[in-house]
Amino acid sequence: MKASVLVSMQKIELREVEIPRLAADEVLVRISAVGVCGSDTHFYAEGHIGDMVVRESLILGHEAAGCIVDAGREVPRERIGQRVSIEPQRPCRTCVYCKRGQYNLCIDMRFYAAPPVDGAFAEYASIPADFAHPVPDTMSDEASALIEPLSVAIATCRKARITAGSRVLVAGAGPIGLLVSRVARIFGATEVIVSDPSEYRRRFALNGWATAANDPITEPSAVTSPLVDAFVDASGAPTAINQGVHAVRPGGKVVLVGMGAEEVELPVSLIQNREIELTGVFRYTDTWPLAIELAASGSVALDQLVTHRFGLDDVEAALKHAGRNPEAVKSVVIP
Amino acid sequence: MKASVLVSMQKIELREVEIPRLAADEVLVRISAVGVCGSDTHFYAEGHIGDMVVRESLILGHEAAGCIVDAGREVPRERIGQRVSIEPQRPCRTCVYCKRGQYNLCIDMRFYAAPPVDGAFAEYASIPADFAHPVPDTMSDEASALIEPLSVAIATCRKARITAGSRVLVAGAGPIGLLVSRVARIFGATEVIVSDPSEYRRRFALNGWATAANDPITEPSAVTSPLVDAFVDASGAPTAINQGVHAVRPGGKVVLVGMGAEEVELPVSLIQNREIELTGVFRYTDTWPLAIELAASGSVALDQLVTHRFGLDDVEAALKHAGRNPEAVKSVVIP
Amino acid sequence: MKASVLVSMQKIELREVEIPRLAADEVLVRISAVGVCGSDTHFYAEGHIGDMVVRESLILGHEAAGCIVDAGREVPRERIGQRVSIEPQRPCRTCVYCKRGQYNLCIDMRFYAAPPVDGAFAEYASIPADFAHPVPDTMSDEASALIEPLSVAIATCRKARITAGSRVLVAGAGPIGLLVSRVARIFGATEVIVSDPSEYRRRFALNGWATAANDPITEPSAVTSPLVDAFVDASGAPTAINQGVHAVRPGGKVVLVGMGAEEVELPVSLIQNREIELTGVFRYTDTWPLAIELAASGSVALDQLVTHRFGLDDVEAALKHAGRNPEAVKSVVIP
Amino acid sequence: MKASVLVSMQKIELREVEIPRLAADEVLVRISAVGVCGSDTHFYAEGHIGDMVVRESLILGHEAAGCIVDAGREVPRERIGQRVSIEPQRPCRTCVYCKRGQYNLCIDMRFYAAPPVDGAFAEYASIPADFAHPVPDTMSDEASALIEPLSVAIATCRKARITAGSRVLVAGAGPIGLLVSRVARIFGATEVIVSDPSEYRRRFALNGWATAANDPITEPSAVTSPLVDAFVDASGAPTAINQGVHAVRPGGKVVLVGMGAEEVELPVSLIQNREIELTGVFRYTDTWPLAIELAASGSVALDQLVTHRFGLDDVEAALKHAGRNPEAVKSVVIP
Repeated sequence: MKASVLVSMQKIELREVEIPRLAADEVLVRISAVGVCGSDTHFYAEGHIGDMVVRESLILGHEAAGCIVDAGREVPRERIGQRVSIEPQRPCRTCVYCKRGQYNLCIDMRFYAAPPVDGAFAEYASIPADFAHPVPDTMSDEASALIEPLSVAIATCRKARITAGSRVLVAGAGPIGLLVSRVARIFGATEVIVSDPSEYRRRFALNGWATAANDPITEPSAVTSPLVDAFVDASGAPTAINQGVHAVRPGGKVVLVGMGAEEVELPVSLIQNREIELTGVFRYTDTWPLAIELAASGSVALDQLVTHRFGLDDVEAALKHAGRNPEAVKSVVIP
Repeated sequence: MKASVLVSMQKIELREVEIPRLAADEVLVRISAVGVCGSDTHFYAEGHIGDMVVRESLILGHEAAGCIVDAGREVPRERIGQRVSIEPQRPCRTCVYCKRGQYNLCIDMRFYAAPPVDGAFAEYASIPADFAHPVPDTMSDEASALIEPLSVAIATCRKARITAGSRVLVAGAGPIGLLVSRVARIFGATEVIVSDPSEYRRRFALNGWATAANDPITEPSAVTSPLVDAFVDASGAPTAINQGVHAVRPGGKVVLVGMGAEEVELPVSLIQNREIELTGVFRYTDTWPLAIELAASGSVALDQLVTHRFGLDDVEAALKHAGRNPEAVKSVVIP
Repeated sequence: MKASVLVSMQKIELREVEIPRLAADEVLVRISAVGVCGSDTHFYAEGHIGDMVVRESLILGHEAAGCIVDAGREVPRERIGQRVSIEPQRPCRTCVYCKRGQYNLCIDMRFYAAPPVDGAFAEYASIPADFAHPVPDTMSDEASALIEPLSVAIATCRKARITAGSRVLVAGAGPIGLLVSRVARIFGATEVIVSDPSEYRRRFALNGWATAANDPITEPSAVTSPLVDAFVDASGAPTAINQGVHAVRPGGKVVLVGMGAEEVELPVSLIQNREIELTGVFRYTDTWPLAIELAASGSVALDQLVTHRFGLDDVEAALKHAGRNPEAVKSVVIP
Repeated sequence: MKASVLVSMQKIELREVEIPRLAADEVLVRISAVGVCGSDTHFYAEGHIGDMVVRESLILGHEAAGCIVDAGREVPRERIGQRVSIEPQRPCRTCVYCKRGQYNLCIDMRFYAAPPVDGAFAEYASIPADFAHPVPDTMSDEASALIEPLSVAIATCRKARITAGSRVLVAGAGPIGLLVSRVARIFGATEVIVSDPSEYRRRFALNGWATAANDPITEPSAVTSPLVDAFVDASGAPTAINQGVHAVRPGGKVVLVGMGAEEVELPVSLIQNREIELTGVFRYTDTWPLAIELAASGSVALDQLVTHRFGLDDVEAALKHAGRNPEAVKSVVIP
């Protein structure tokens, strides 16, 4: 099959590689659409994320959808032909985290496009059958791929304990910030303020995603007052994080989902005096069924997020583009 | 009455002041013992804690016990004569935090020895009747006063979600660190490792408070491995906090109770990848009855903590001493 | 002032009584609208609810709104003139339940229209200032009164842990069942099935309250399959409760809010094998601000519920009517 | 191998059967001890528990320990020779309950001695490797087997939300009631009252298991007053359940773990007015490591529970004996 392979830092090649062999519990998916994520861009540009280092050639891409074309020995044959959204993880299912319902924290996880596990910028990819989630015919291939970032948003809103009446501040109006904003409203939030320095993104956000949008540079006080029940950082920017923590009411929540610096200066005295609870989101557990339901019912307009499309032979351009273009929201690769 | 008054930064005077007037729901307590706390030392030495600034003369001291000698109009007369431990706060009882059971976060709190509210380094102090908790005759005056730091420890263990089988790391073997260690075991923790650079304090900790003690300077790896369910910082030291966060397992808890710098560099990437939950403890809500029960039954040996005693005319010496003496665990003022 | 007084079982008289005297923290409200509740009907018809017995004359009515016309000594004068919705309870604020944020469970509660505390079928009523919640000018008097049953619905959805994607079964399409259905959707429920034998009520429910409606008599299997995340009983009928529990998935919730028999035969073996969690709702804590926000924004169409209106001299007719008329949803008394 | 087989209702035969074949992820355990449980007795005497019916011959016994003597293809060979306690369940690991950390509620569970899955009254039994939990050499075979009922007790105390200071009522001083009592104290309960009509069992309970023991027949008021934070029914007796619910404070918990009638009359009005939360325990999730730690450290004296022992050729006597002898606490089969 054809695959777009990261052969070394900042070097992508379209190569002919072997189709993945199926384990007994796996299915083979012919990929129809793959979203480009910041972590793909990061691996491409830097060759590593934290201590995950790309040492050998690697297929990137983990926001993927397609159609099941083959099935392992233990999988019912009826599944062949199903259109599916891929939950791109293979937890061990036996460690204590898997058994406690925190399989995202599995100590032996194999995750798409996290070295040395290949991802989905390719014609085909394999996944355990129960992580290939059927989607309805009415859902587009691109929306099916974007169930992955929608899942991140759901995991974030759960951790942020958003419920009816919540007031939420979201830093960053990229795809994750927009999805968190929209999902927060579905969880019952009555006010969702997104903060982003880009006017283009603030306007985008006001088109059905957030209830208000502020510029953190020119209106910093609008960002931090009045205090909110939850602050979600989807920017990864240290100043946004610090500013956001100051906006949280006593007993409120901070959830970090954006990726950025290893260490950030945090106002611990404020965190103590207000008993603020701060945590982060790492991938997701048990989000696909809800994400598919929300997208299928039209509650989340995933298709609206797609601003650019690329072919499998053009992944390098997609990765460069996603990192640079301020007016790109979501780029999708169509193999 | 006589009171020990902080008249300006680093200046304490024994003065004759008026006995507090009682509101209808208050009682007057003749003070029998008052613990000296780090925050008292801090106000004395620096004149402020964060944005709480001592602007007029102030009576310090908030770990207090005594005997009820008078009662306001709405309080049953039978309460006169009771020996009590004082919960040194007057929440407004009407704001949203009070109504939600988080009265420690009350937006209109009046707390002992937090400017401009006087504390208990005096012959008498007033408190709402329901915050004057009866103690059994078998409990010493000093133990009755130390119900306050024990309450901090209980609030901490609740936030740290300690339960049967928990493994806990505690940084700092001062009074709060020791009490957190002991209370953690009562909550069911099977391993409680305290970390402190003072050998004296480590030895003290091993005498019934913690199950293990490490020196963070000479054995840093013993502090951070293996990973624990909860890390409690009772030191306020930025390096201890950072080191402690690294010791927490995926999905584990960090609770900050020690006071120190306003801002601390924290490993946010680690917090995200492990979905660690970090929060702080600010005073306490609904802890006195349990604290009294634990002390009365002998589960927590409060009297053991008292290493030094001072008279009301010697509060300045007590405050200086507490800040300097490495072998002082808890100093108590006996009016 | 004029008041509608229950003088003995099934006997209501319009009497001239004294205007309530204000405690220092109370306000006096000129009543503009009062909803008629099943508990009012019950006290009128039976003279008691469980062990709460009407022994002396009593003013019924606890779903009330009006305008502040006087204020006690400690209340800011600016509050006079405010239109308010009354949270009809006076907790003691000092017991352990009040301090834990469960003031609905206060051991010394004084609640409107629960003997011997008078309610609001009168020209005026008094209430502590912080339980008189301001409403916007755009909200009708009737909607302001119905914030009370909306609060019951909010308390119910919180206990039922309803969140994005929840599937909910509600037995009974009276005012509480309708409000629970609507609020469940605001909490993110994607499917809310109401079950009621009355065709009129099922049709009412489908007009913006629930997503589906079933007849438990003719379509029992539609009520119990497929399994739901939460079952709310708002009917009080033993067969509905038993049937509803069978409809709950493993690990799901049952919340009883309807009033009926003292004892009900429950499938404990099923509750065990599925680890179903069953509880009840008793009034509410901290619901008014959210209820007012949801009604003011139009998310809950409270005015739609009002099907009948009565004068203060016609309360007996209102009570009789509410108990009998299958096409009455909500009756309101306008003093 | 030899196995004790239930061939029809009330008929057990010692037969020669095939040693279980190992799946790739399983181990073969030579059984050293198996506890006799009420459910074994029930299957023997009645031929079914609820809708689980014994249709073909079945090996009973699910409280088992032994030594690993063989291992499937995917299991490290080093495991052969380990002494283990068996967690007698094989969840599917792919359904939504497994993924949420509630694998006890797995929709495709295969559980020892639940028809048609064979149990451990045999010389050998197979189990997935991660459900064969290593035990220390200091732990006896019998204690290793009784990790199973200890796990039930841990699951119960978790559901009952027992923590420091809890007051708990336990109905029934059989093995489960005793273990729940002891574990409650380890979770921090300061008072654990066991209620049992048998004087022998009450005396047994006071020997290190509960803090108090009452006779529900002669001292019913001692059972229901003062109110407790949690009531655990380990008796299955409808009157004990009803009486116990009346003993629970507002906001408290009821956990049903005893097996008995399908349906029980419950005081729903009381459950509502006190907002009591009632649920049941069905097996366990993630309890073995803690149970082994508590038993190994001596916190729970499992060996004390064993009052009678039987050979593999004497299982029928063991089953009859367990059901009848009031002075039997725990019988163990030694193959």
